[in-house]
Amino acid sequence: MDDDYSQRLKAYYEELRRELPAEAMSTDDADRVIYSVDASKEQGFADVIVSPKTQDDVVTTVALAGRHRIPIFPRGAGSGMSAGSIPMGRGVVLNLAKLNRIVKLDVANLTAVAEPGVVTGKLQEEAEKHGLFYASDPGSAAFSTIGGNIAENAGGMRAVKYGSTRDHVLALKCVLSTGEVFDTGTYSLMGVTGYDLVRLLVGSEGTLAVFLEATLKLIPLPKFVRTALAQFSREEDALSASAAIIQAGVIPRALEFMGEEALNCVRRYREIPLLKPEANAALLIESDGAVDEVTRHEIAAMKEACEVGENALLAWMEAQEKEQRETLWDVRKSMSPSLYEAGAYKIAEDIAVPRASVREFVAKLRELVGERVRQPIIYGHLGHGSIHVTFVLEGKDDQSIPAVQEAVEEVFKLVVSMGGSISAEHGIGLTKRKYLGIELSPTELRLMREIKRAFDPAGILNPGKIWEE
Amino acid sequence: MDDDYSQRLKAYYEELRRELPAEAMSTDDADRVIYSVDASKEQGFADVIVSPKTQDDVVTTVALAGRHRIPIFPRGAGSGMSAGSIPMGRGVVLNLAKLNRIVKLDVANLTAVAEPGVVTGKLQEEAEKHGLFYASDPGSAAFSTIGGNIAENAGGMRAVKYGSTRDHVLALKCVLSTGEVFDTGTYSLMGVTGYDLVRLLVGSEGTLAVFLEATLKLIPLPKFVRTALAQFSREEDALSASAAIIQAGVIPRALEFMGEEALNCVRRYREIPLLKPEANAALLIESDGAVDEVTRHEIAAMKEACEVGENALLAWMEAQEKEQRETLWDVRKSMSPSLYEAGAYKIAEDIAVPRASVREFVAKLRELVGERVRQPIIYGHLGHGSIHVTFVLEGKDDQSIPAVQEAVEEVFKLVVSMGGSISAEHGIGLTKRKYLGIELSPTELRLMREIKRAFDPAGILNPGKIWEE
Repeated sequence: MDDDYSQRLKAYYEELRRELPAEAMSTDDADRVIYSVDASKEQGFADVIVSPKTQDDVVTTVALAGRHRIPIFPRGAGSGMSAGSIPMGRGVVLNLAKLNRIVKLDVANLTAVAEPGVVTGKLQEEAEKHGLFYASDPGSAAFSTIGGNIAENAGGMRAVKYGSTRDHVLALKCVLSTGEVFDTGTYSLMGVTGYDLVRLLVGSEGTLAVFLEATLKLIPLPKFVRTALAQFSREEDALSASAAIIQAGVIPRALEFMGEEALNCVRRYREIPLLKPEANAALLIESDGAVDEVTRHEIAAMKEACEVGENALLAWMEAQEKEQRETLWDVRKSMSPSLYEAGAYKIAEDIAVPRASVREFVAKLRELVGERVRQPIIYGHLGHGSIHVTFVLEGKDDQSIPAVQEAVEEVFKLVVSMGGSISAEHGIGLTKRKYLGIELSPTELRLMREIKRAFDPAGILNPGKIWEE
Repeated sequence: MDDDYSQRLKAYYEELRRELPAEAMSTDDADRVIYSVDASKEQGFADVIVSPKTQDDVVTTVALAGRHRIPIFPRGAGSGMSAGSIPMGRGVVLNLAKLNRIVKLDVANLTAVAEPGVVTGKLQEEAEKHGLFYASDPGSAAFSTIGGNIAENAGGMRAVKYGSTRDHVLALKCVLSTGEVFDTGTYSLMGVTGYDLVRLLVGSEGTLAVFLEATLKLIPLPKFVRTALAQFSREEDALSASAAIIQAGVIPRALEFMGEEALNCVRRYREIPLLKPEANAALLIESDGAVDEVTRHEIAAMKEACEVGENALLAWMEAQEKEQRETLWDVRKSMSPSLYEAGAYKIAEDIAVPRASVREFVAKLRELVGERVRQPIIYGHLGHGSIHVTFVLEGKDDQSIPAVQEAVEEVFKLVVSMGGSISAEHGIGLTKRKYLGIELSPTELRLMREIKRAFDPAGILNPGKIWEE
């Protein structure tokens, strides 16, 4: 079997070499190492790295792979948290980072067309130059790609108001492992002809098709933004305040939570003078709109909602100027980098619960973890009920890893029992596939596997992701 | 074959009679006539009408039909425009209008759970009682059902700002023709576990599964609404103004267009004093928000955008009070009833084009129709590029019908060449299935058919819809 694979790979490689420019292909060990990892802790080594610069070369790479039955592992910036781009087993890493043209920025139609390798932040910038807004804003926007965002249906800070990546994709141009190239969706805002293949492809984690181009919805850039940082001495007050904000008739553009361990982690990482020593939880709140009054009104309503009890709200800071707003955001934006220094190894989960249940969830989570292992770092996008739960460990051989894994499985069961999801916005990839049955029914799994077979009969697109083949 | 069907039907009916209350089943000719039509011009007669009041009875009806291979035609209020609920060929009309409980209105989580037979307007009302907003608002909201809206991915007036039905559905409970019952999606706002079966089911026109319950997203009710009616002497000025509004950095909550024939049709139907005799086109514009300033600002910006040329804007009327707003809306809301009196027979199409192309599209449409047949009535939701094109005819045997049909096919080709859709929001059903290939590629059609097979291997759910079996 392995011999057979080696022969097929050889034939594939030779054929590909006749079609693609030499610099688009590599079997160097250095490259194989670079493309063996992503933002998860997983690792896998591909046989070949292909980095095409044109859509035609992507089509050739995928079509030939289909013919020779060579696995293809599509990859954007490799910033995924669930190992969606890691080559599991032998095959080709299809690095789409160089397929990175913004094909069109259609100001009259509030629409952009971008290749999958376009960095999300770059598209945001280009749109803003024209007074437009690509509202999707994953935490990784500065380096993650549109293709990766679509494959994972990335969420992020602004999803509470503007939705996740799914809500910004109008159409997709794709290639299947059969070699078929097709456009699906419309350039118009509306269109209900046939089944919604666009949203089926969004979040399919590279297992159904390889994207060549995405048509994206833009909106007018909100002219006014107002940001506030609320500090609380008690975590439960911050969590109650979050629920009260949702009740207050306001949809903020961001509503970010940091718990006790999260603030301490950031404090250890860098000095943040505006953070009170007695603060054990914080909410970062943001409102945007076309007129100043709306942000003023919303921030005021949210401040009132934060006053959930006597002395509950320790400090309230508000900013409108960009620089001051960024100072407030610093607290939240220091979270990810501070985690790199927090411990040699982490088990980081991303879950979602109904928004009104966040306080109940955190209490149950803390009780569930108890003294078994060190309490996790808890932060997240409370506006849409997404919570990141990070267990900090000494290293890959930390003795508490089995206990953490046991706790994680219980957390997932808790989340699903509360109506939530074991993956709010990071996907299943490799890291969560063994938990899939906690959330999905046998019927859903059967339907998904049959959909997979319809799109990718040869089973070569990102095999081993979402579920074991 | 027919004998075999009759035997299977008999066995099915007898088994069903043992399971369901007698009043839930009918083979009366009067009922068969009632359920033979919907808001399209199609007609088809089922063998049996089943009207269950409980989810269990729906499951029984569908599961037994799967076992006996009896076609099931699900139906909400029968208000569909593309004949999605018409029984084509023999089988069972599954009338879901009595499965109409609002199971939950969760104010803390801004979430509602509704059975498919709940009338959309009823859900809107219930939500508003709690200061919440079910933002989806199809033109038929007063009588159409949540289940029908989801099956067709209904759009409507407010879709420009709030999206179509797809954007308001969090989860679905369904039964397949295999008898399997499953929940898909989450009660939380976020969740990316596995493929997005929820959005695949939205807009699937009853061909994949029968809905038992839908979990719907609500938002805070906008406190302020401001409406304006802009009248133009020239249709092209109204169309230019519409594009200018989209450019003005404003997303209205409604942006409705009525062309020359549309205004005349309404004028013939009833007297509308505020409509200037010299007006040949009108835009109905609406803004909403949490503070008055934002609606004031947006309406002012849109008024400016309407001044597209000297004397272009004939009249501008603005209202904030509910009663006055309704007076302005009267012009637009008289459109549908006026059409009933406009002619004995109509061929009504619903298409979408990119928003900036509406003026170009209407010009090309008028040229394409030319003198071949009477110019169509043109109106629509310009905010999201949806245009309704209605050809008025003398009767079912009008001699210009072939010429209209020829023109319609050319219009669809034009629409697709402009990046639009042959169905903006009404679905394909029976009425547009022969045009499917104009918009969808053979690859998309193959994928959709294989998805259909995965969900409904027996092929009994709404057979003949979207495509011929």
